[in-house]
Amino acid sequence: MNQALEGIKVLDLTRVLSGPYATMIMADMGADVIKLEQPVTGDDSRQFGPYVEGESAYFMSLNRNKRSMTMNLKKPEAKELFLEMIKNVDVVAENFRPGTMEKLGLGYDVLKEVNPKIIYAACSGFGHSGPYSKRAAYDAVVQAMGGIMSITGQKDGQPTRVGTSMGDIVAGLFTAIGILAALNYREKTGIGQKVDVAMLDCQVAILENAISRYVVTGKAPKPEGNRHPSIVPFEPFDARDGQIMVAAGNDALWEKFCNAIDGRELLEIDEYKTNPSRNDHYTELRPLIAVKMLNKTVKEWQDILDEAGVPNGPINTVDKVLEDPQVLARNMIVEVEHKVAGPLKIPGVPIKMSETQGEIKKAAPVLGEDTAQLLSELLGISRDEFEALKEKGIF
Amino acid sequence: MNQALEGIKVLDLTRVLSGPYATMIMADMGADVIKLEQPVTGDDSRQFGPYVEGESAYFMSLNRNKRSMTMNLKKPEAKELFLEMIKNVDVVAENFRPGTMEKLGLGYDVLKEVNPKIIYAACSGFGHSGPYSKRAAYDAVVQAMGGIMSITGQKDGQPTRVGTSMGDIVAGLFTAIGILAALNYREKTGIGQKVDVAMLDCQVAILENAISRYVVTGKAPKPEGNRHPSIVPFEPFDARDGQIMVAAGNDALWEKFCNAIDGRELLEIDEYKTNPSRNDHYTELRPLIAVKMLNKTVKEWQDILDEAGVPNGPINTVDKVLEDPQVLARNMIVEVEHKVAGPLKIPGVPIKMSETQGEIKKAAPVLGEDTAQLLSELLGISRDEFEALKEKGIF
Repeated sequence: MNQALEGIKVLDLTRVLSGPYATMIMADMGADVIKLEQPVTGDDSRQFGPYVEGESAYFMSLNRNKRSMTMNLKKPEAKELFLEMIKNVDVVAENFRPGTMEKLGLGYDVLKEVNPKIIYAACSGFGHSGPYSKRAAYDAVVQAMGGIMSITGQKDGQPTRVGTSMGDIVAGLFTAIGILAALNYREKTGIGQKVDVAMLDCQVAILENAISRYVVTGKAPKPEGNRHPSIVPFEPFDARDGQIMVAAGNDALWEKFCNAIDGRELLEIDEYKTNPSRNDHYTELRPLIAVKMLNKTVKEWQDILDEAGVPNGPINTVDKVLEDPQVLARNMIVEVEHKVAGPLKIPGVPIKMSETQGEIKKAAPVLGEDTAQLLSELLGISRDEFEALKEKGIF
Repeated sequence: MNQALEGIKVLDLTRVLSGPYATMIMADMGADVIKLEQPVTGDDSRQFGPYVEGESAYFMSLNRNKRSMTMNLKKPEAKELFLEMIKNVDVVAENFRPGTMEKLGLGYDVLKEVNPKIIYAACSGFGHSGPYSKRAAYDAVVQAMGGIMSITGQKDGQPTRVGTSMGDIVAGLFTAIGILAALNYREKTGIGQKVDVAMLDCQVAILENAISRYVVTGKAPKPEGNRHPSIVPFEPFDARDGQIMVAAGNDALWEKFCNAIDGRELLEIDEYKTNPSRNDHYTELRPLIAVKMLNKTVKEWQDILDEAGVPNGPINTVDKVLEDPQVLARNMIVEVEHKVAGPLKIPGVPIKMSETQGEIKKAAPVLGEDTAQLLSELLGISRDEFEALKEKGIF
């Protein structure tokens, strides 16, 4: 056993982002993820640009390490094959609107009759219960409703959507956790279960201390911009050629910072000696720091502040992230060879395990690439039988 | 067995946010999380406001369901007791700067000698390898370096920090996943391992399609504001009393939307019939929609658009999130009774499992609340022995 989730089979009906993110994490750790797609069109995100040789980069990023088979689940013969496959897998994952699987006659109640050990993971906008359950959601909708937009943005500015699809991605992470916890329970008891994760619930979960701040003070938090609400200096400054984030989290770091920026005179001023007092005198202190920061480039400041032990970092654009020596040293950018698109750089695996290293073994599949192989492997269907079934429009 | 992670013991040395978030998720699903804190001060976040009866709301939110024991790991007697405890737990978790545990003589190499089955989870700013490994990081620093700030913000505006500590929280989520995957491997092979998660790596992982967009187009993505880059209408509009997010993701929804907002005349205009064309004519189309949206309140639009089946949602501030009927129906706001602070509302458990429901069984512990109990339970140390050891300043 070389990978942490080796031997776990996931029948994956998820599309676009939240669900595919969850199953990607599992595939990266060695689970056998079988992506079951609609014939002809496949996962909606195969239509999302940008493209390389006609293949969606969006899709390729999220579906590495998976296999693809097509099946039209509206056909009775396909349903039968699907139920047979359910007997031979550990997990089934979907991110349809609640009720969709039931309408197909393939809801959890049906699947658990066929395989009581099955773990059924459902990731949806609002979850499988509650008054909004049946509604469709998009990332932008749950970011709006879940509160994160209301606390993101420039000071006194507009609520701001997080630039990556946090609504989907965080739900994908919680779904992966739910599946793994259910596998642990099943390993010990032999009992499967349904895992129901809602994007909106996950947004509430990540609000974290914004909730306790509101509950205790009675004031709803607002966008705070890029400055720490109570620590000084703890914000970006303009350098000669860009911005650098400085995080002098305590008085010892303040001293190191002043020495590093050639600002020893600031250390002599009583009002700036403790953090609460720096906070009180923020308006006059900030420009004194800002004017010094303009003198050097981001790179020069990085070297100086790193040397001084003051936490800092450039505000990297994505191109710079892909060149960062630490990011590269941790294999967080991996090049895969896609059979149609050729070589493509995608994010690496962020969970580094000493015994069972995660790995990107193969690029994303083209639509239905593994259908015949999987039918044979999971159901013992021969190539000839496959061709005959194909005539019926099942695959 | 009533909870998914029942029977799993976690010795938890984590502080503040990333690590405690990971162990909170485990505790919510039934793991026995033993929080090992510095005597006198404890977890740094016990000093973070706001406070209720002198207890930190920040700390109470993240440390529900855990027990607390104090121990000064710089004392040789404490180290001995710690190593004894390592024999009796499944997981040890820490989020120190890399090298800290080694300096204490309690690095993974030492611990695995004592218990080869131990899972050692380390969550740090930059990870346990690479050129920046030994540096300290804060959430703001990894948000800056990891690229998310560069794609968050108003159109043509400043890079913007996400208002919740995504740098910490996402690392906590990946750490929880790594621990659970390692438990799966151990269950099958009997072998423990080290799980090393870096906040910066996790930021790269959640950039997701921003990376493929850059790699394919050669252009680093920028802040896009709140509007979808290629779908119209898919953005917030001002209603009479606030903003509402509208997500008409396809042409069928466009038709429903126009009917719902009393804008049937828009359906007659050729330029607005398909999404690509709406996108091309965005500048003239937006005001035509915007003027209609001003006529009603957010609540009125919500009812109308929900009825019409058009995905939408208010941009809720945190106070509104806590009143949302769906959030409440899903038990995403839970009141716990803290022994000092009294009743406090905190976020619920977002992973809903049919057989092993997550649960908030107890409020966060006060510092060292369970020390005597845990010494007895894990090491068979009697109350008298405890008092004697306490004299030596170990607890």
